[in-house]
Amino acid sequence: MQPITAVNTTLQLKELRARMLPLNISAYIVPGTDAHLSEYIAPRDARMAFMTGFTGSAGTAIVTQTKATLWTDSRYWVQAERQLDCNWELKKDVSVSRVAEWLISEVPPGGEIGFDPFLFSLKTQEDYSISLESSNRSLKSLPGNLVDQVWIARPPVPPHNPTRLPERVIQRSWQTKVEDIRAQMRENPYGPTALLLSALDETAWLFNLRGNDIPYNPFFYSYTLLTMDEIRLFLHQDRVTDELRMYLNASCDGSLCVKLKSYDSVLDELNKYVRQPGVKVWIGTEYTNYALYEVITPQDKLMTSSYSPVLMTKAVKDETEQRVLREAHVRDAVAVIQLLMWLENSVPEGKETELTAAAYVNKCRSKQVDSKGPSFETISASGPNAAVVHYSPTEETNRRLTVDEMYLVDSGGQYLDGTTDITRTVHWGTPTAMQKEAFTRVLMGNIELSRTVFPAGTRGVNLEMLGRRALWELGLNYGHGTGHGVGNYFGVHEWPCWLPGQQHSFQEGMFTSIEPGYYKDNDFGIRTEDVVVTVPAHTKYGHNYLTFDTVSLVPYDRKLIDTSLLSSVQLQWLNQYYETIRRLVGPELLRQELHDEREWMLRHTEPLVESGSSAAVCSSSLTLLCLVVVLLSSIGLSSSSSSCLSLIRFLSPD
Amino acid sequence: MQPITAVNTTLQLKELRARMLPLNISAYIVPGTDAHLSEYIAPRDARMAFMTGFTGSAGTAIVTQTKATLWTDSRYWVQAERQLDCNWELKKDVSVSRVAEWLISEVPPGGEIGFDPFLFSLKTQEDYSISLESSNRSLKSLPGNLVDQVWIARPPVPPHNPTRLPERVIQRSWQTKVEDIRAQMRENPYGPTALLLSALDETAWLFNLRGNDIPYNPFFYSYTLLTMDEIRLFLHQDRVTDELRMYLNASCDGSLCVKLKSYDSVLDELNKYVRQPGVKVWIGTEYTNYALYEVITPQDKLMTSSYSPVLMTKAVKDETEQRVLREAHVRDAVAVIQLLMWLENSVPEGKETELTAAAYVNKCRSKQVDSKGPSFETISASGPNAAVVHYSPTEETNRRLTVDEMYLVDSGGQYLDGTTDITRTVHWGTPTAMQKEAFTRVLMGNIELSRTVFPAGTRGVNLEMLGRRALWELGLNYGHGTGHGVGNYFGVHEWPCWLPGQQHSFQEGMFTSIEPGYYKDNDFGIRTEDVVVTVPAHTKYGHNYLTFDTVSLVPYDRKLIDTSLLSSVQLQWLNQYYETIRRLVGPELLRQELHDEREWMLRHTEPLVESGSSAAVCSSSLTLLCLVVVLLSSIGLSSSSSSCLSLIRFLSPD
Repeated sequence: MQPITAVNTTLQLKELRARMLPLNISAYIVPGTDAHLSEYIAPRDARMAFMTGFTGSAGTAIVTQTKATLWTDSRYWVQAERQLDCNWELKKDVSVSRVAEWLISEVPPGGEIGFDPFLFSLKTQEDYSISLESSNRSLKSLPGNLVDQVWIARPPVPPHNPTRLPERVIQRSWQTKVEDIRAQMRENPYGPTALLLSALDETAWLFNLRGNDIPYNPFFYSYTLLTMDEIRLFLHQDRVTDELRMYLNASCDGSLCVKLKSYDSVLDELNKYVRQPGVKVWIGTEYTNYALYEVITPQDKLMTSSYSPVLMTKAVKDETEQRVLREAHVRDAVAVIQLLMWLENSVPEGKETELTAAAYVNKCRSKQVDSKGPSFETISASGPNAAVVHYSPTEETNRRLTVDEMYLVDSGGQYLDGTTDITRTVHWGTPTAMQKEAFTRVLMGNIELSRTVFPAGTRGVNLEMLGRRALWELGLNYGHGTGHGVGNYFGVHEWPCWLPGQQHSFQEGMFTSIEPGYYKDNDFGIRTEDVVVTVPAHTKYGHNYLTFDTVSLVPYDRKLIDTSLLSSVQLQWLNQYYETIRRLVGPELLRQELHDEREWMLRHTEPLVESGSSAAVCSSSLTLLCLVVVLLSSIGLSSSSSSCLSLIRFLSPD
Repeated sequence: MQPITAVNTTLQLKELRARMLPLNISAYIVPGTDAHLSEYIAPRDARMAFMTGFTGSAGTAIVTQTKATLWTDSRYWVQAERQLDCNWELKKDVSVSRVAEWLISEVPPGGEIGFDPFLFSLKTQEDYSISLESSNRSLKSLPGNLVDQVWIARPPVPPHNPTRLPERVIQRSWQTKVEDIRAQMRENPYGPTALLLSALDETAWLFNLRGNDIPYNPFFYSYTLLTMDEIRLFLHQDRVTDELRMYLNASCDGSLCVKLKSYDSVLDELNKYVRQPGVKVWIGTEYTNYALYEVITPQDKLMTSSYSPVLMTKAVKDETEQRVLREAHVRDAVAVIQLLMWLENSVPEGKETELTAAAYVNKCRSKQVDSKGPSFETISASGPNAAVVHYSPTEETNRRLTVDEMYLVDSGGQYLDGTTDITRTVHWGTPTAMQKEAFTRVLMGNIELSRTVFPAGTRGVNLEMLGRRALWELGLNYGHGTGHGVGNYFGVHEWPCWLPGQQHSFQEGMFTSIEPGYYKDNDFGIRTEDVVVTVPAHTKYGHNYLTFDTVSLVPYDRKLIDTSLLSSVQLQWLNQYYETIRRLVGPELLRQELHDEREWMLRHTEPLVESGSSAAVCSSSLTLLCLVVVLLSSIGLSSSSSSCLSLIRFLSPD
C-alpha cells in the first residue's frame, strides 16, 4: 500500500517514457546533480525529485518502459519509502556496479541506456562504462535533457544578479587572478592554451563575484573559458547589470576584457575553440561534466588534472582572506555562544526542540554583520538522533531537548567575508561515564590534530589518525572523514585539501575543519568541529614546518571533559585556546552589548586544571606537608600554614 | 685523468658495440637487476658492474656506438667516480625521464633502443615508453642478453642444491599452500586459470625450499606456473637431488605433483600455455619481468595485481612462523648484546674500528643456533659516517671508534627459523645535549608507533607520522621510510606491508620493522630499529583492533635517553619492554653461559624513572616533607624518617 505521504508521479513517468521511445533507448538515467556537479542544487535542477517525489540530496533514478527505480544510501531509505509512490521501487544501494547489474538484467542485449552528459562527471561515465563493458549494453549520451522536456512547471533561472564582493574583503583583483592563472598555464609543461572552468565556485572566485542561484552556496550559473588573450564568461546575460559589465571590461577587446557569452552557448563555443589547430584545453576532472569533456577531441587537445589551477589556488587564502575569515569567525562565535547560553537556560523548562534550537541559531547568525544566511542546513540533534550522521530535524523526527540527553549542533554561516562551520556537543544534566569518556577522547582528537607540527608536503592521509587515536585506544571510531577545506564566502566543503586527503598537501593559508566524533547507535552522538588555518610553525631547528591555528572560537562543554584523561600538553593547549576565545570574542560580545553572554563565555573558559596521577600524588603529598606544617605551627615552630594552602589551591584541580 | 682505481672496460665495450651493429640499435640499456627483479643479485647477474667497473647496488648503464654513460644516485657518486674509466661518463641522476631525454639527444630520429626484457619490470618499460612517446625513438625488446654474449668469464650458476626447510619451522606443507593459493584463484572474480610466480621468494615460500644463489637472501633461481591441475616448477634441474624430487612428488601426474622444468624454458612453456583457449594468467606486476609479461597476449589472457596472492599470503605469518621468528630474535639479541658489551669495554682502548665491529657482530651471530649468515651487509658507522644512510664501511672509509663519537650499527641475521634486522645507536663518552635530545625524540617515534592501537584496515601511510612526530616538533626529520616487512628466513625487506605503505593494511601476523632516525650531515647519525609483529589489541569497547608487539630484544643506550622528554605512558612502555628483554633474553644468556653479558643486560634494563616537571615538583615536595619529618623526629614527634627516604628513592629519577 502506498503511504499517504507519497507523491503521484504517474503523469511525468508516462511523459518521460513517451519521449524515450523515439530515441530507441531502453532505460534513462536521472542523476540528482546539476551540470556543475554541485554539492547543493537549485530547485530547477531537482530533476530526480520531480520524477520520483523523493527530495533527499543523494540518489539516482532510472526509468525503463516498465520499471522505475530509485537508488539511494541508508541515510535516505526511510524518507524515500515515505515519498515514493507505487510506480517506484526503492533500491538500497548506490554503487554503480550494482546499478549496472540491474541495468544488464532489465535492458535487452544490444540495448542502449540514455543519459544527459551534462549531469554525469567523467568518473560516473567511466564507472558505468567499465561496469557495462562486454555486456552488450551501452550508454548513449543524449544532450537534450528528457526530464526538462516533460517538466512544464520547471522553476526558471532565479532573477538575482551576480554581484561584486566589496573591496574590503579582497586583496587580488580579478585581473590579478586572471594573470596568475595564465602564468600557471604558461609554466605548465603540457602547454595548455585554454582553461575551462566548470565548477560554479571557480568562476565566482576568478571574478570576485557571488550569486544566489544555489541554496547555501553564493554561486551563479556560469562557465569560463580562459585563454592567453581572451576571457569568455558564460552566464545568463540578462542578469548582468551595466555596472557589472563595466567592472568586467565587457566592452573592450584586450586580453583583460571579458567577453560575455550566453550560458547555454558553452558547448558550441568550446566546440568551435577546439576545432582550431594547435589548441589544448585544460580541465579539472573532478568538476567537469561529460558533455564538455566529450567535445574536446582528439585526445591531444585535452589536458587534465584532478582539480583546476583555480581550485588549487583558491584553496590557499591570501592575507586579506585569512584576516576577514578570522573576523567572520569571531562574529559567528557570538551567535553560537548566544545559542548555547539560551539552551542552557531554557532547556530545563522543557519547551525547546531540535527545530526551535536550529531556528534560534539561524536567527542569531542573521543578526551578525555581513550575514548571508546559513552555509548548510543546521544539524540540531538530540539523543539518538545525533547518532545519525547528517541528520537534520524535520517535523516528524523533531525531538524535545531535555537535561537527560546529549545534544549536538553542527551549523555554519555565510558572511560576506567568510564561511563558517562549527559543531558543539553539550549535556545539560549529568552525562554518563561513557559519554564523558567518549567526549573527552573526541576532544583529544581535536587537540592532537590542531596542535601537531608537520613539515611542508604533509598530506591529510598522514595526519588524520591523530583525530582518531585517543578513540582507537578504547576500541571506538567514527565513520566519516575528519576534515574538509572551507571557503571564503563559498562552499562550506572545499577541495582539494581535506583529512584524510591523499593527493595534496597542506599549505600555509589553507582553512580546514577538524571534526572527530563518536556515535552510539540509538543512544547519542558526539562531534567537536573547529575550523583551523594552516600557519607556519616556529621550531627549534627546522624551517618550512607548519601547524594549525584554530579560528572557531566557542568553548567546549566542560561538564563533558574528564581532565584526568588529558596530558599536560593537551590541557595547556585547551587553556591557551580558552584564553584566545576570551581575548577575541570578549571584546566583540561587549561591543554587541551581550553582557550575559560575555559572563557565560568567561565562566565556560575558566582555565582547566590538571587532575592526572602524578599531580594528584603531588597535591596529596602537599596536603600532608601542610598538615605537618600546621602541626608544627600549632606547637610554635612555623607560621607558614596560609601560604601553604594557597600553594595547594594552585596545584589542585578545581 | 683516470683514477688508478678505475677498471679498464675498453674491451667489453668494443665487443658489445660490435654486437649492437647487426641489430641496428642505436643504444643498449644495461640495468643493474636480474630477471627476478631481486634486491640483491648473484655475481653472474652483475652485468652493469662487468660493463662499467662500477659495483654499487643501484644504477643503469647505457651504451651507444660513441658514448657510454652510467646513471646512479647520490649514494654512489664518489664510488662511481673512483671505479669508472675514461670510456664512461657519470650521470648524477636516475629518473627515467632524464635518461630518456639523454637518449633522445643521442639516438637519431627513427632510432631504436635495445633492452633485455628479462631485466625490465613492467613499470620500467612503461616509464621509458611514456618518456619516449612521440619522440620518434622507440624501445626494442631483445631477449638474448648482449652483455652475456661478450662476458666470457661470466660466473656459472652456483652448484648449491635447493634444500627443504626442517619440519620444526613449518606449519603448512607445500601441498597445503598450493591448495590455499588455488582457492584464492578460484575465488577471484576475474577467473584466472594460472598463476605465474617470478620473484625468487615466491617459489621458495610455496615449496618451503631455500637456496644459496643470491647474497644475503636464501633463494634459488626459479619460476612457478601454477594451474588448477598442474604445478610447473622451473629451476636448474641438475641441482635437484633425488630426495627433493621425491619431496616434490616429481614423478607422478596429479594436481599435487610438481612437474620439474628447465629454468630456461619458462618463456616457451608460458607461451605454449597462453596459446590455449580460455586461459588467463595472473601475474604480480611488481615482480614480473617484461619478457614474461609481453608473452601473455591478447590482453584478455592477462590478469594483474601489484602483488601476487603468494606475496600477500606470505606476508601474514602463521602461528609456527610467528613462534620461531620470535625465537630467532631472542638468539639474535644475544649476538647484539655481545657486540654492545664488547664495544663498551674495548672502544676506550682505542683499537676498534667500524670494520672490526662489523666483523665482531657477524661472528657473534654465526655462533648462534641455526645461523645462516648476515641478512644484509652490516652498517657499522661512527660519527659523520652514520649520517650517510646505507653506509657500510670499506677499507677506505673505515673509522676508528672513540668515546667522542656516536656509533650506529644496523645489522641482521639469517636463521633457519627467521630473519632479523636491528639498529642501535650508542655513545661511549658524553653525548651533546642535541644528540641526547635527537636520540630521545627518535626513540619516542619508536615507542609511539609500537604502542599505538588501530582498527583493522589501517595502512602504513595512516600511521607512519607517529615515528616522526616527536622530531617534527623540533623541526627535525629523516629522509627514509619508517619500516618494511620482514620475512621468515627470507629477504629482510618484504612487501607489501610497510610504513608508509599506501595500498595494503596491517594484518595480524605481519612482521615489520620500525626505524625512525635523525641524521646530521658531517656530524652524526641516529637510528633505532626494532622488528614488531602485528597482534590483536584488547580494547575496552571494540573488536578487531590491532597493535604491535616488539620482538627485537636489545636495550637502548640509557645515556642517550632524556627521560624528562618522555610521557609517563612512554616511560611505562619502555620499562615494560625492558622487563620483556629480561624475561626472554635473560634465560638464553644463562643457557649460553654468557654471564658477563647477562649482567650487562640487567644493568642496561634497570627501570627508568620519570623526571618530568610535575614529578620533580612532587619529589622535591617529598624531600621537604621528609626534612620536616626528620625535624619532628629529632624533637621526638615522629620516627618515620627512614621509610620516608625510601619513598623518595622510589619516586626520584636515578
